[in-house]
Amino acid sequence: MSLHPDRFFSGDHQTRSAARDIYESVADLPIISPHGHTDPAWFAENRPFPDAASLFLTPDHYVLRMLFSQGLTYDVLGVPRRDGKPVADGRTAWQRFAANYHLFLGTPSRTWIDHSLRWAFGIDETLSAETADRIFDTINRKLTEPGLLPLAILEKAKVETIATTEFALDPLVHHQALRQQGRIGLVRTTYRPDDVTDPDSPAFAANIARLSEITGEDTASWSGLIAAHRKRRALFREFGATATDHAAPTAMTADLPECDKQPLLDRLLSGRAETEDAELFRAQMITEMAMLSLEDGMVLQFHAGSRRNTDPVLMAERGPNLGADIPVRVDPVRGLESLLQKFGRSPGFRMIFFCLDESVLARELAPMAGYWPALMLGPPWWFHDSPRGIARYLDQVVESAGFHNLAGFNDDTRALLSIPARHDVWRRAVSDFLARMVTASTLGPSDARALARWLSYDAAKAAYKLPA
Amino acid sequence: MSLHPDRFFSGDHQTRSAARDIYESVADLPIISPHGHTDPAWFAENRPFPDAASLFLTPDHYVLRMLFSQGLTYDVLGVPRRDGKPVADGRTAWQRFAANYHLFLGTPSRTWIDHSLRWAFGIDETLSAETADRIFDTINRKLTEPGLLPLAILEKAKVETIATTEFALDPLVHHQALRQQGRIGLVRTTYRPDDVTDPDSPAFAANIARLSEITGEDTASWSGLIAAHRKRRALFREFGATATDHAAPTAMTADLPECDKQPLLDRLLSGRAETEDAELFRAQMITEMAMLSLEDGMVLQFHAGSRRNTDPVLMAERGPNLGADIPVRVDPVRGLESLLQKFGRSPGFRMIFFCLDESVLARELAPMAGYWPALMLGPPWWFHDSPRGIARYLDQVVESAGFHNLAGFNDDTRALLSIPARHDVWRRAVSDFLARMVTASTLGPSDARALARWLSYDAAKAAYKLPA
Amino acid sequence: MSLHPDRFFSGDHQTRSAARDIYESVADLPIISPHGHTDPAWFAENRPFPDAASLFLTPDHYVLRMLFSQGLTYDVLGVPRRDGKPVADGRTAWQRFAANYHLFLGTPSRTWIDHSLRWAFGIDETLSAETADRIFDTINRKLTEPGLLPLAILEKAKVETIATTEFALDPLVHHQALRQQGRIGLVRTTYRPDDVTDPDSPAFAANIARLSEITGEDTASWSGLIAAHRKRRALFREFGATATDHAAPTAMTADLPECDKQPLLDRLLSGRAETEDAELFRAQMITEMAMLSLEDGMVLQFHAGSRRNTDPVLMAERGPNLGADIPVRVDPVRGLESLLQKFGRSPGFRMIFFCLDESVLARELAPMAGYWPALMLGPPWWFHDSPRGIARYLDQVVESAGFHNLAGFNDDTRALLSIPARHDVWRRAVSDFLARMVTASTLGPSDARALARWLSYDAAKAAYKLPA
Repeated sequence: MSLHPDRFFSGDHQTRSAARDIYESVADLPIISPHGHTDPAWFAENRPFPDAASLFLTPDHYVLRMLFSQGLTYDVLGVPRRDGKPVADGRTAWQRFAANYHLFLGTPSRTWIDHSLRWAFGIDETLSAETADRIFDTINRKLTEPGLLPLAILEKAKVETIATTEFALDPLVHHQALRQQGRIGLVRTTYRPDDVTDPDSPAFAANIARLSEITGEDTASWSGLIAAHRKRRALFREFGATATDHAAPTAMTADLPECDKQPLLDRLLSGRAETEDAELFRAQMITEMAMLSLEDGMVLQFHAGSRRNTDPVLMAERGPNLGADIPVRVDPVRGLESLLQKFGRSPGFRMIFFCLDESVLARELAPMAGYWPALMLGPPWWFHDSPRGIARYLDQVVESAGFHNLAGFNDDTRALLSIPARHDVWRRAVSDFLARMVTASTLGPSDARALARWLSYDAAKAAYKLPA
Repeated sequence: MSLHPDRFFSGDHQTRSAARDIYESVADLPIISPHGHTDPAWFAENRPFPDAASLFLTPDHYVLRMLFSQGLTYDVLGVPRRDGKPVADGRTAWQRFAANYHLFLGTPSRTWIDHSLRWAFGIDETLSAETADRIFDTINRKLTEPGLLPLAILEKAKVETIATTEFALDPLVHHQALRQQGRIGLVRTTYRPDDVTDPDSPAFAANIARLSEITGEDTASWSGLIAAHRKRRALFREFGATATDHAAPTAMTADLPECDKQPLLDRLLSGRAETEDAELFRAQMITEMAMLSLEDGMVLQFHAGSRRNTDPVLMAERGPNLGADIPVRVDPVRGLESLLQKFGRSPGFRMIFFCLDESVLARELAPMAGYWPALMLGPPWWFHDSPRGIARYLDQVVESAGFHNLAGFNDDTRALLSIPARHDVWRRAVSDFLARMVTASTLGPSDARALARWLSYDAAKAAYKLPA
Repeated sequence: MSLHPDRFFSGDHQTRSAARDIYESVADLPIISPHGHTDPAWFAENRPFPDAASLFLTPDHYVLRMLFSQGLTYDVLGVPRRDGKPVADGRTAWQRFAANYHLFLGTPSRTWIDHSLRWAFGIDETLSAETADRIFDTINRKLTEPGLLPLAILEKAKVETIATTEFALDPLVHHQALRQQGRIGLVRTTYRPDDVTDPDSPAFAANIARLSEITGEDTASWSGLIAAHRKRRALFREFGATATDHAAPTAMTADLPECDKQPLLDRLLSGRAETEDAELFRAQMITEMAMLSLEDGMVLQFHAGSRRNTDPVLMAERGPNLGADIPVRVDPVRGLESLLQKFGRSPGFRMIFFCLDESVLARELAPMAGYWPALMLGPPWWFHDSPRGIARYLDQVVESAGFHNLAGFNDDTRALLSIPARHDVWRRAVSDFLARMVTASTLGPSDARALARWLSYDAAKAAYKLPA
């Protein structure tokens, strides 16, 4: 469908007009993408994407899950199996997706895809059974054009900087290539050491051993483990990293006495771990990372409260990140207490906190961010990165946290073409939110434009300590 | 008060106009009422309702509780006592109700009652101390007219099908009469075996014994108990049932090893139950019911999270379902895990989940329904079956679950005349929600009308596997 | 910035016009302030406030916390230290505050301060680095004028009655002075015995001993302790108290058997308390206070769910109530069960419940208040006393609790000048809420005006049993 220039704005004339004015002042700002999951190989190699299905369908867990919920199997959708058995080819999968495109009415997926189809491919037709083949062919043909190579897409989208996310053991080969191309800064990595901080991750003990090999530190000792992190963080910074990132099912942090740390690590590495040890180790490692952040200035991102892989069949057949992760409640007041009481006042330390539990926004996170100097709130994450999610977020955080304890926007996406679409939704939703304040006479138009710019551009640069 | 044709629509001209267009396209659709608590005797016997108080006041827990909260006793309101002591007569109770009708401003009860008074009785006057007697007399006089007999009300309301709810031991005598009248299909039963699946229900052990008598199965053995359910479900299906229904204080499900099942049943029947046994039995029985649903195709409804009978005085004096049930928090991610990991992908299995905890809508239920093929979301239940409750529900579920993982609407009512009123509120609230999307240019008018029809009519038929 | 006459009203013309009509009918009603934390010395002594900083900055935890969150220290903000070390003077602190006034965009603090600057000082300029000194001087000059003495401010704000809050051991010297001046009624105290009901409060055992001294009762015995409360409550009533107030981190209440009470008190006073004893004592004391309320008619306020002093550094350096208290989840259904099952039906007993957990409003509190005669809901508290917080509150409570189980508004403030500002925000937010109902044709204009008056004035008088 065609994308209306006033989409997502309020219905009444006065607010809509104010929203349009505000939006126009930020619509063309460059994109800061300080957190996401795009593949650095795209930018290092700059090769065409293979086809429409591999671009829009098979890697997009939002899309796959919705189609699965309505009875389409992952085989039919062409998602590769670990056992190598055949799945549907790209065109066939695309046809099924297109025929079921009505399922996405009202969802952000539809917004992002409609936006991408027009923005990248000039396609205004609505995806459907009837248009499936034609759109598939159009996309595939255009994907080989120079203007749709990954780096060209970044340029067309006015991406000023984009961060990928790599595990602690990642060899960063693509970022090395990018460095040789002089593209560090346009592309950055992010230090996400879950592979060696989460005892529930596959091959945890082997990963710890591997961390020793690549750093020369004795990672079986607590101090060696921290030293190894210190070295990896320094290396990641050479590839543009200004931030670390940490995921956990809860918001728990810990501040163990020194004498308890080595025994905890010993239990985990020797297979004698007790029930709570994995949680405790994750909790303590957040605090250790904060200590290292005090040394090296890296911003600590904490993504808490996703229960991963709730469908063991999907996990066994095809692996993670395909749609079966479900949010759960978090307890940031008690969870972050150890960390904040230790470092919440430390100049130069910054934590950006993300969760999927909207019930803590007004009750806990906004008051906390409105007190602790170190704490900033990440934008709405995952299922809440949507027009309604953004509206609820702003409604619930601004009064207690203000606008300046917010970390702006990040798209957090695996889908390259969704980046301009997602930033556009954010800028529109922000503009509408501010416009309603203007209409309600609680914000002047020039303050509204200044805040829109802050939320669309400056806040993310400031929060992630990106160069001005 | 008079019912404005644009009631519940947004204030701005453009949205209101769009809402009116959408609403007009669904206002006259037949009513599908796949879940509720009307009395099958009404339809089998088709006798006039006795008087206004017994129609609007004494059976309506919404109305009784509000009046009680403001100091009117249940005696004064004419609610029968278990000890047989006298309570106020209908007219006296009605007068007190009418004199306090201002207490219902802003509540759905007032909407439903105003709607019913006009729709059924042509009464446009506002209920008050002054109009109490006149309205009481008007209602009583009209109740004897043929057009206000229960079956005529169904016809006038365009009810295409209505499901009542009966316990496992119910003899279904009224449904037998309805079968003889050829009215199965217009009226259906629903299999709600809480009397034999909830060990906390009164006379649980006696009920299990009675289940054995009426089925000829040995219900003291686990396999016999399941066989008994199988027989009762088959019988209920003969009386139109397409669904089962299960209520529990939590969302817990279990998947016990076979060897643990019989000992659990033994403990419960012998009075040696341990603290968690009742909860565990309820949790396991949900999964057993799902297994039977796989065999017989019945849709499993799960109503979780109402804490029943929180006022023991009311319970002792007059019994359940009179206003002292209060919602509590639920944990569907962990609670439903056993069931979904076992049957969440099974073709043909369907669970419709209801709860009263809005904090799980965006965080848990919408993402879960947007993944698991077996899971659909029931509409806002009980206290949330209201204009604002519906608006919050749609706001929180649509972006992650889409519209097609929703089970449409059910009125869930004990009050016959509230059925057209409740469906009308739903259709209006849906129309306004969709109209705001139209105004925000994120939905086209024809898609909006199609979705309005889906949510008002087709979705319920599809979700409950009702004949087309 | 200038305060627009239609601020906080909806954007569409029809709703805005209705809101204005409703608001105009309540804008000039007297202020009932039945719960707050103003200093009774202000009214007893009626001396000028010293300067702008001590009026607007150093006592306002909302303002301090926000500035601290953005890197300004409490030293720089002029907040006294316990160790007596110097902090910034008033003018310097004020300059820093003014230079960072943009941080308050979108927060209620800015609304209250802008309102106060104009209402009390006729200042229309926006606070900023540039205007800081000029505004500081203007305020300081005007503070000495008779019209800005504390009692004159009450009169100018049309305060009909205002309640302060004193601990059980408070000597009430200012209220004694006020009695001599004939001002009891204009000013009242409130009995807040947390100093002797919360075992976690500093010097609890000493406080219990002191309570014995001032009452002549043996407070080491349970019955003597209750008798001492009875005497203090009677004394507080002589100084206008119609209510008690109780704060706790949870909503827990208890109903211990008599034989368990003395041992609990013994453990607490002898330093042999077990882990749960403090919580249990607080829980039991709520119920004891309810028993005394049955005797003496005092209204019981319960403020549950603030985790106090989450920054131990701030607490150690400067004391409590400076911005580091953070809300947490509460469980009113289970928490209040003991109390409500005992006294929830008792004629003459009234509890007004406040919490900071919005997730319980629609799910638990509104249904509970819509059932139990004794329970009323307090208005949005603390972080939620804001335009958006009020809107969410009304949206979530009215449909199940109606308007008549709400206790109206209280400002709960430590900042005298914020009183008219806060009541004005409430009246505007209420007017807008009701106006949207009028526009949606679910409320007539005269009912809307009646409800606006109820919520702005009468409800608070009725809830707190204030003289008509």
